[in-house]
Amino acid sequence: MRFTCAKADLIQAVGTVARAASKMQKTILECILFTCDDGVVTLRATDIAISIKTEMTAQVEEKGKAAIPSKVLHEMISRFPESDVTFESIGENAVKISCMNAQVDLQQMNADEFPSFPEIDRKTQIKIQQKLLKSMINQTIFAVAVMEEKPILTGLLFDIGKDSLTVVALDGYRMAVRKETVISDVSESCVIPSRTMREVSRIISDTEENIKFCVSGNMALFEANNTQIYTRLLEGDFVNYRNLLPKECATNIRVETEMLRDSIERASILARETNNVIKFIIEDKVLEVTSNSEMGKLDEKIPVISEGNNLKIAFNSKYVLDVLKAVDENEVDMRFNTAVSPCVVRNEGSDKFEYLILPVQMRD
Amino acid sequence: MRFTCAKADLIQAVGTVARAASKMQKTILECILFTCDDGVVTLRATDIAISIKTEMTAQVEEKGKAAIPSKVLHEMISRFPESDVTFESIGENAVKISCMNAQVDLQQMNADEFPSFPEIDRKTQIKIQQKLLKSMINQTIFAVAVMEEKPILTGLLFDIGKDSLTVVALDGYRMAVRKETVISDVSESCVIPSRTMREVSRIISDTEENIKFCVSGNMALFEANNTQIYTRLLEGDFVNYRNLLPKECATNIRVETEMLRDSIERASILARETNNVIKFIIEDKVLEVTSNSEMGKLDEKIPVISEGNNLKIAFNSKYVLDVLKAVDENEVDMRFNTAVSPCVVRNEGSDKFEYLILPVQMRD
Repeated sequence: MRFTCAKADLIQAVGTVARAASKMQKTILECILFTCDDGVVTLRATDIAISIKTEMTAQVEEKGKAAIPSKVLHEMISRFPESDVTFESIGENAVKISCMNAQVDLQQMNADEFPSFPEIDRKTQIKIQQKLLKSMINQTIFAVAVMEEKPILTGLLFDIGKDSLTVVALDGYRMAVRKETVISDVSESCVIPSRTMREVSRIISDTEENIKFCVSGNMALFEANNTQIYTRLLEGDFVNYRNLLPKECATNIRVETEMLRDSIERASILARETNNVIKFIIEDKVLEVTSNSEMGKLDEKIPVISEGNNLKIAFNSKYVLDVLKAVDENEVDMRFNTAVSPCVVRNEGSDKFEYLILPVQMRD
Repeated sequence: MRFTCAKADLIQAVGTVARAASKMQKTILECILFTCDDGVVTLRATDIAISIKTEMTAQVEEKGKAAIPSKVLHEMISRFPESDVTFESIGENAVKISCMNAQVDLQQMNADEFPSFPEIDRKTQIKIQQKLLKSMINQTIFAVAVMEEKPILTGLLFDIGKDSLTVVALDGYRMAVRKETVISDVSESCVIPSRTMREVSRIISDTEENIKFCVSGNMALFEANNTQIYTRLLEGDFVNYRNLLPKECATNIRVETEMLRDSIERASILARETNNVIKFIIEDKVLEVTSNSEMGKLDEKIPVISEGNNLKIAFNSKYVLDVLKAVDENEVDMRFNTAVSPCVVRNEGSDKFEYLILPVQMRD
């Protein structure tokens, strides 16, 4: 194997696949498999749960393949000067990598041991703008369960209807539901590990170009920009999220997102000593945010548009802040029923996003 | 006490003194003492080892003082909107702080318990440009001892001669010596805790304005921009650094700083598995940098101007990198004697800086 490519292309391609490689050292799964063909080099990495493949253009002088440990390769090329980089196999066990006066021989492993890559039936697919999918991931993924007591809740539900995609995450204390119109001719639902979705969000670009998503059996594929990300799906039944959203609403307020977020951030400094508990008092077109600890007390009044009953309700400030940081609307609607029933945060007049947050019990 | 000031001035003043406050909660030393006089508020913080005092302008409506816990205050005002901030004592135990709709009552402690601030005889003083002192600190402080076996080596030696200041740090494996011309009419030497010097470097600005430095008894004072930093000195005898610098030189090379630094950074990726050992081979106007581990091997040739004997010598890559990252010259001179005697890194043709690095024993 011998090829030469631009350092920038190499960094981009290695950076794309490297995080699928396993962290287990001295195994073939810690490697990136390079395969050279006419004018193109394919890079693959997999830890079985997630598999990423991408391509870069290169001057290929000798076809072949090599499996190079991912971590040391990535670090080394990041330190290379900005110039062309040449890879050349030296016997069975090493690859010489050179870039101007930088020159290093890295050990390679047996490329034939690299596991075969997943295949997937691409009949069932949806298309969505990359930047839109990126925002759907980032606006929901914070609500996935971290503990693995219910493994299915560590993933994101992709609920695909005719021309719509709904992404859902929930962890038992709060839920994030994000809906968009997409190009789809199927109805299907599947649960994708949150780790895969973080990689997808990282790899896809902030453009209007489409990304394709296919699901088949226990596998799914994301495909964009010469890159494929294959993932196993989580197995089991996801919670029926539609039933969790309350139909009733006894109190409804509309509030400026940033103003509320800033108040809660201040309140949460004092609330750290009291399990992050902050209180809302809704009365007379004012939302009063309060927190209280040995360090002091905070009491801020925020003007709101309001309908319905007065209410006192307490929350874990982290859950409210996560939502207010995720949304990109200037104003949000907040719907309440009682001090012990969930609050729903929505964008005004649509169901583009709906966040559900459970309150905490008030101590006084 | 009641005063109003701009948020930016408040953040600046609190940020300047806050890091002198103790991290021990529920003690007066965790507080910043605010003292209000006509048109000016003085802020003080101390943990006894280091004491910082600064001033800010304010509209003072009621003179007085208050001791407010530093950490919660700093966090809270950082979250305030960009506007004027008003402080107002509420009885003995709290201060109301408000800024537009942000409003918080913080507990205050008994200001009378705040320790009295150090006084220092200012007769003996030197003056030096702030940005110059900053660079002298940053170009030496990395070499102070971290372990406290010899407490005196955890500080920076200030060796003041007639119109010169030499700053020295050493930890038993390497030494940094940095010399500049200053305005001085004394000869004096003292050792300042590295923690103080980090605060001084952080607080002083990158300007040509002078900072004053006074030393008297077991105390020193840095004074600039309405701010005073008092520090205790470390007691004991510092090593006679002049005796450590070798007089002889059997091999002398001049090398491009950045080219050598980049090579060593690559070499050190492989050297991590072998206690960071890298090797220099100097021969025929070439400096060869090599490293070797199970992951692979690196062998890079760097053109140098050289005089004297050929040499093979090994180093801990971290110590060489620390020096090459600290210096701001395009080229450095490196002087060697044997494979077991120290290397000196100097700027060409002057003694502005001299770094001494001990080699490690070669294994082959």
